[in-house]
Amino acid sequence: MFGTRGRPFLQPPGRATLFAEIIGAHYHPPTLELTGGGQRMHKLLRVDMSKRTVAYEDLPKRYSQMGGRWLTSRIVADEVPPTCHPLGPENVVVIAPGIVTGTPAPTSSRISVGAKSPLTGTIKESNSGAALSPKLARLGIRAVIIEGQAKPGEFSLLRISKDGASLSPAAQWTGKSLYEAFPALFDAHGGVQRVGIMAIGTAGEMRMASAGVAFNDLSGRPSRYAGRGGLGAVLGSKGLKFMVVDDTDAPKREIRNKDLFASGRAKLAHALATHAITKPKGALNTYGTAVLINIINEAGALPSHNFREGRFAGAAKIAGEAIFEGNKSRLGKELYNHPCSPGCTIQCSNTWHRPDGSEHTSCIEYESDWALGANCGIDDLDVIAELNQLCNDYGLDTIETGGTLAVAMEAGVAKFGDGQRAIELLHEIGRGTPLGRILGAGAVVTGRVFGVERVPAVKGQNMPAYDPRAIKGIGMTYAISTMGADHTSGYTIAPEILGVSGKTDPLEAGKTDLVRNFQYATAFLDSTGHCLFTAFAILDIPEGLEGMVEECNAILGTHWTTADVARIGEEVIAIERAFNKAAGFTEAHDRLPGFMAREKLPPHDVVWDVPDEELDKVHRP
Amino acid sequence: MFGTRGRPFLQPPGRATLFAEIIGAHYHPPTLELTGGGQRMHKLLRVDMSKRTVAYEDLPKRYSQMGGRWLTSRIVADEVPPTCHPLGPENVVVIAPGIVTGTPAPTSSRISVGAKSPLTGTIKESNSGAALSPKLARLGIRAVIIEGQAKPGEFSLLRISKDGASLSPAAQWTGKSLYEAFPALFDAHGGVQRVGIMAIGTAGEMRMASAGVAFNDLSGRPSRYAGRGGLGAVLGSKGLKFMVVDDTDAPKREIRNKDLFASGRAKLAHALATHAITKPKGALNTYGTAVLINIINEAGALPSHNFREGRFAGAAKIAGEAIFEGNKSRLGKELYNHPCSPGCTIQCSNTWHRPDGSEHTSCIEYESDWALGANCGIDDLDVIAELNQLCNDYGLDTIETGGTLAVAMEAGVAKFGDGQRAIELLHEIGRGTPLGRILGAGAVVTGRVFGVERVPAVKGQNMPAYDPRAIKGIGMTYAISTMGADHTSGYTIAPEILGVSGKTDPLEAGKTDLVRNFQYATAFLDSTGHCLFTAFAILDIPEGLEGMVEECNAILGTHWTTADVARIGEEVIAIERAFNKAAGFTEAHDRLPGFMAREKLPPHDVVWDVPDEELDKVHRP
Repeated sequence: MFGTRGRPFLQPPGRATLFAEIIGAHYHPPTLELTGGGQRMHKLLRVDMSKRTVAYEDLPKRYSQMGGRWLTSRIVADEVPPTCHPLGPENVVVIAPGIVTGTPAPTSSRISVGAKSPLTGTIKESNSGAALSPKLARLGIRAVIIEGQAKPGEFSLLRISKDGASLSPAAQWTGKSLYEAFPALFDAHGGVQRVGIMAIGTAGEMRMASAGVAFNDLSGRPSRYAGRGGLGAVLGSKGLKFMVVDDTDAPKREIRNKDLFASGRAKLAHALATHAITKPKGALNTYGTAVLINIINEAGALPSHNFREGRFAGAAKIAGEAIFEGNKSRLGKELYNHPCSPGCTIQCSNTWHRPDGSEHTSCIEYESDWALGANCGIDDLDVIAELNQLCNDYGLDTIETGGTLAVAMEAGVAKFGDGQRAIELLHEIGRGTPLGRILGAGAVVTGRVFGVERVPAVKGQNMPAYDPRAIKGIGMTYAISTMGADHTSGYTIAPEILGVSGKTDPLEAGKTDLVRNFQYATAFLDSTGHCLFTAFAILDIPEGLEGMVEECNAILGTHWTTADVARIGEEVIAIERAFNKAAGFTEAHDRLPGFMAREKLPPHDVVWDVPDEELDKVHRP
Repeated sequence: MFGTRGRPFLQPPGRATLFAEIIGAHYHPPTLELTGGGQRMHKLLRVDMSKRTVAYEDLPKRYSQMGGRWLTSRIVADEVPPTCHPLGPENVVVIAPGIVTGTPAPTSSRISVGAKSPLTGTIKESNSGAALSPKLARLGIRAVIIEGQAKPGEFSLLRISKDGASLSPAAQWTGKSLYEAFPALFDAHGGVQRVGIMAIGTAGEMRMASAGVAFNDLSGRPSRYAGRGGLGAVLGSKGLKFMVVDDTDAPKREIRNKDLFASGRAKLAHALATHAITKPKGALNTYGTAVLINIINEAGALPSHNFREGRFAGAAKIAGEAIFEGNKSRLGKELYNHPCSPGCTIQCSNTWHRPDGSEHTSCIEYESDWALGANCGIDDLDVIAELNQLCNDYGLDTIETGGTLAVAMEAGVAKFGDGQRAIELLHEIGRGTPLGRILGAGAVVTGRVFGVERVPAVKGQNMPAYDPRAIKGIGMTYAISTMGADHTSGYTIAPEILGVSGKTDPLEAGKTDLVRNFQYATAFLDSTGHCLFTAFAILDIPEGLEGMVEECNAILGTHWTTADVARIGEEVIAIERAFNKAAGFTEAHDRLPGFMAREKLPPHDVVWDVPDEELDKVHRP
């Protein structure tokens, strides 16, 4: 039924029988049947920013199995008029931990943030690893819904604990650095162990469409981001600056079938611990996601100079290996990466250190490294670190910001490769000067302001770090994603480049099934609360996927099989597509920009040549 | 069949039998039958800006009856990929005189400019009275098609005469004032009588989405504009700065049936000469279009302070009457208005004079007066004149520019009513500073850059000078127009406010048929080359419409009746809607901004409450 060019869903080549065996022989439905009772303590927390009220609501039964993206997209679709202005009072922001978040399920502390996006005009879900996510879950809060709108310029802090929720003024922190605010907030609210914080920076206060939503990591840094889609601007329009979650004395999350959970967790943990990409001192733990710089450069798909070339001369200087070696040289020891959020066994979050050994920034993700580096022609890790740190401090999505800088360079606002000018431009954004406002509005608006045609975006969102001309499957994903150009909506790089779940030729078309299935699988993952990087292990190691499904069943009392992964993913995508359709999106929006069909991308000298019909087949019934 | 709440198409109440009588008793099909022969000298002129080539092509037979908007929309639909970037090489600009342009048909020297719009993303036609239009027509050129794209920053002048067409560099005029360039160009090309000029200003060179296309009036001023939709930016992207048309020794336009033409012309001329709005020293000739300021203010529908109120305290100070009296006082005599283009009998184009009697600007249209005045809270005609003159000089659409200033004032960039700051902001646009670039990109982009929700726009284009909450029919027209918020796409103000073609209550809904019929009739008018203002006379005086149709038949050899007006209008709209649909527009885009459904407009305290279903009924089969 679901296949990568004929292969069953989510399954590497040659494992068809094994996969069927797993489902037949090893799957145990939960022995404990619970219906409804377990929902008693599950709540929605609704915050009305117009009236400054908070209210707990019983979780509606129709939401009872949902978490993460499934739940944020469902609530947004239920509550937001699709044609409304994203910065108007009709929009809502939904913040939801995943289905298994708050349990000992490995690498499952993601938080989903959903709303109608001011960047894309589509429905949006952006997720992040976050210390706050399991805390919310343990408090029994399945979603926080932020609605209404405070008076312009009036910002609040929402504090949530077992004793309830309350809003207080955040005026003292408006216009201030997040790296200044977070330590003070931890001091005021009981420390890094006790509370987790969500925040918007000055970019969000200014309702910039590049503004992300920041979460602290385990050391309290405001360095983890639900970055994409300008959801920070939506929170800014509502007047919510901070959310502080204190789970002191909260109960553990209820697990209905402890044995099943233990079994599932063990399978997934084992898969993660043994896969080359996710194991300790494996690729991600050693080099971080920036391990991809050299790999994608080698594939001729690392967009450099605003997607003019697929290779970057300075790639090796900014690659994950260079980060590892640079830190080693400056610190005098090998530094492996750390977890971004509780319970993560992959631990891919890096730091970059100055020549004197002091920490400069965390984390230089592959996407940030590329966006602020290769795409702008910048090959200096210290400059990239500074740009990354400024994004974190001002509350900006690094991908959109780097993409915007590159479009501004295309327009002549700065020279490609001029790192100092790029740093100045980041400060313009932070200060909200007219030029900074332009850049803060993202790449498409910057292109409109400067009359630039070469804007590599889909549905208003700048493309991430894979040139679609050189990797056709990810290009299809950019085109048809419900959320604009987004690699995380279906990471087909796994089979196209990394050889995970089989290997396909990146330059080959005909990936309709692959693209659809990856979108479904990802939507499921984003709903469980597991990190997308668990995908490497569950794609290659069937027991991993089985374990993940068992975890869900153990918690929800459901009887899902691995086949339900696709069913649920399909449902999530269907919710999102229906919202987008009602908002006015059609297949005409599922297209890459025209210049990519004209301009050949070196070194392979390829254009975007996937026929529209192939794109439309992905979701056409 | 076509009705204003049951009344036949284009017909005032109580005249149903008269109208039928006219069609039955007075309509004469042309006696001379010609097929094809008359097309011999009709050409398309195709200019490829990439290759710097010009080529004459025989007019395809399928285009033979088309002119003006009908022809520009048809060619754009035939040649432009609907999803292309408006500033990319795939877009084309089509410049076409109307069906009867270049003949002695009264008030018929309009020129249509069509392309995919960078402001709206839709198909676009914008038309203007222009000295150049009849010259093109007499040269046998039914349309000029500008395609391809010059190198960035390279601008050319296209000269057309009976001896052919050629491109030459326009470098000496790039970045310069249009009021400086035009006199020099007239000197170089034989004078105001001999040539007509089309131009883009610096705004168009910078590919700003507020950039219009300028044409000289009969005194050589660069003061007439195909303003809306950013078509100046498209010409800028192609590198065409000027088009100079010299019709020396061109033949007269062939008229196939001279008697029929004379009859038709006389009927239309008589209607124009007798209708209170269009007659000599009538409302338009005396007060210009700004006669509407007091009328619309009285109706509570004059949007002031960025559509916060429907009345403006300073209305009387900026009204057409104030312009007339101000000129009288400063010049010591009554000054009636002049024609904007050859053969116009309405003559509504005004001038505004400084205290010393010198000319300050021409023309302060109602829309410009409102956009740069009431909508910005500015009540000083000298300030409005200066803003208007700067728009003309930099090559900007006054409506979009005024609307953008108001949104910028909403964002706090300037205070409402601060005329000096508004003048400074216009210069920022002219200089292309970052702030100027923002404003030059139009109201919607300015709203996005500053995070402003209150942007009164539809499909990317700012609303003109009638608040839709207080005049429902024009609001429906804004919503469903193929070109974004546009009063000229169906000027229902005629019956809703002016009592032309009957009188309907502006606050009443239920105007589906009215709105549809006005769109059809307008599309026909825009195709003939007649000015929209002939509509007043032909709506109230049936012989006028009959005469207009006779003119067309006499020229084309067709047998149209007044029923064909609707058929042709429907065809034009269908072409445009099909293009827009393929470009990704749906009924979800046929909506007014949400704040208008929430915010009550004083003095009537009305919100936008026309149901979506009523909007969708206008064009749903």
